[in-house]
Amino acid sequence: MAEKYIDELQHRLLMFARDRDWEQFHAPKNIAMALAVEAGELMEHFQWLSEAQSESLGEDKRREIGYELADVFIFTLRLAQRLGVDLPQLVEEKITINERKYPAEKVRGSAKKYTEYE
Amino acid sequence: MAEKYIDELQHRLLMFARDRDWEQFHAPKNIAMALAVEAGELMEHFQWLSEAQSESLGEDKRREIGYELADVFIFTLRLAQRLGVDLPQLVEEKITINERKYPAEKVRGSAKKYTEYE
Amino acid sequence: MAEKYIDELQHRLLMFARDRDWEQFHAPKNIAMALAVEAGELMEHFQWLSEAQSESLGEDKRREIGYELADVFIFTLRLAQRLGVDLPQLVEEKITINERKYPAEKVRGSAKKYTEYE
Amino acid sequence: MAEKYIDELQHRLLMFARDRDWEQFHAPKNIAMALAVEAGELMEHFQWLSEAQSESLGEDKRREIGYELADVFIFTLRLAQRLGVDLPQLVEEKITINERKYPAEKVRGSAKKYTEYE
Repeated sequence: MAEKYIDELQHRLLMFARDRDWEQFHAPKNIAMALAVEAGELMEHFQWLSEAQSESLGEDKRREIGYELADVFIFTLRLAQRLGVDLPQLVEEKITINERKYPAEKVRGSAKKYTEYE
Repeated sequence: MAEKYIDELQHRLLMFARDRDWEQFHAPKNIAMALAVEAGELMEHFQWLSEAQSESLGEDKRREIGYELADVFIFTLRLAQRLGVDLPQLVEEKITINERKYPAEKVRGSAKKYTEYE
Repeated sequence: MAEKYIDELQHRLLMFARDRDWEQFHAPKNIAMALAVEAGELMEHFQWLSEAQSESLGEDKRREIGYELADVFIFTLRLAQRLGVDLPQLVEEKITINERKYPAEKVRGSAKKYTEYE
Repeated sequence: MAEKYIDELQHRLLMFARDRDWEQFHAPKNIAMALAVEAGELMEHFQWLSEAQSESLGEDKRREIGYELADVFIFTLRLAQRLGVDLPQLVEEKITINERKYPAEKVRGSAKKYTEYE
């Protein structure tokens, strides 16, 4: 399930790494770590905020957090590429799996049991 | 910088959450946590492997890891949506920032200083 | 700053690993990953709860979370040991650093700026 | 299973937070996030290193990493305290559980199956 946007971005990220001789550092194990590190940096912005505060951040803050999200996104694409898996295809499958696992009519109204669903 | 693939996927994920009354749980703070939790699950597959082993995983394992990557990808898109930031635009900017920060001609050959660069 | 409790526990954990030939897997890099994976599992219990809900968990849930905390604690001691650093000494130093960085009289009453402090 | 070292440290950390009016921010959910963020910062030091490199770090680096470990340790004690669980007791139980789950004589020599064990 070739997705042009993802394909092209992955190609650019590969070129970026090759141009810098960085492929040697990008073993899947290491990219997985880097991704988790970025996820931690992303989360740091939220750790002392209430849920309500996290809903109404100013533009600068949202932009700052957005760059962390971009880092996570970039490492996600890189890791998919290094593993040789078709990310858009797996995303499709995962959505289908989730639709079956959490049928809307059954889940709705039992929101307080949300934690048991995911 | 509208990217049709990302836009459509974000729309589907929004509908998925709305159909289940899950929007109430999806404060940015909570999605950031969920993303980090998935990043941890992703990393768990690699923790006791050598870098070399992580380069040569079997198909089943790569698929299993791929689903974790799909989860990270999904939460990344959801969080961008909830924050109201344009993820593809920020990814573009981030790549440009990285190109300037790590000029290929300067970085190459000083690979052992990689850790100082990122 | 020898702390008998920590010393003895670290010794037992070392013996546990040696008895199983696991020292070979316990490079500091890998233990750091394992610790972060456990921190993710710990956090998973809280991701969809409100802060208030997280304050009033039932006994079973608190026990379950407590075991995840124990895992984090165990890997923290193991990593300190593998790095050859004196954890209790560094904890003392860190508390002193924090006391100077966040003087009580200055921090109190400006609670809404908490995020800027940490 | 009162452990004087842990008890006293938890008491000091509680006083530290109270003196700064920080108890209000320290819902278990938030401390769990902060702990995971620190685990990410800890891991960042290792992400591009080989396992061998992580075994032979210089003194400054080990000290720097040690402070991150101290942060993880501090949040672990804080969270146990806020949850009202007896951390040393749970650590004891966890070690016993692991001893039964991974009997030395059975595990040794099947090191390549390590990933299946943990």
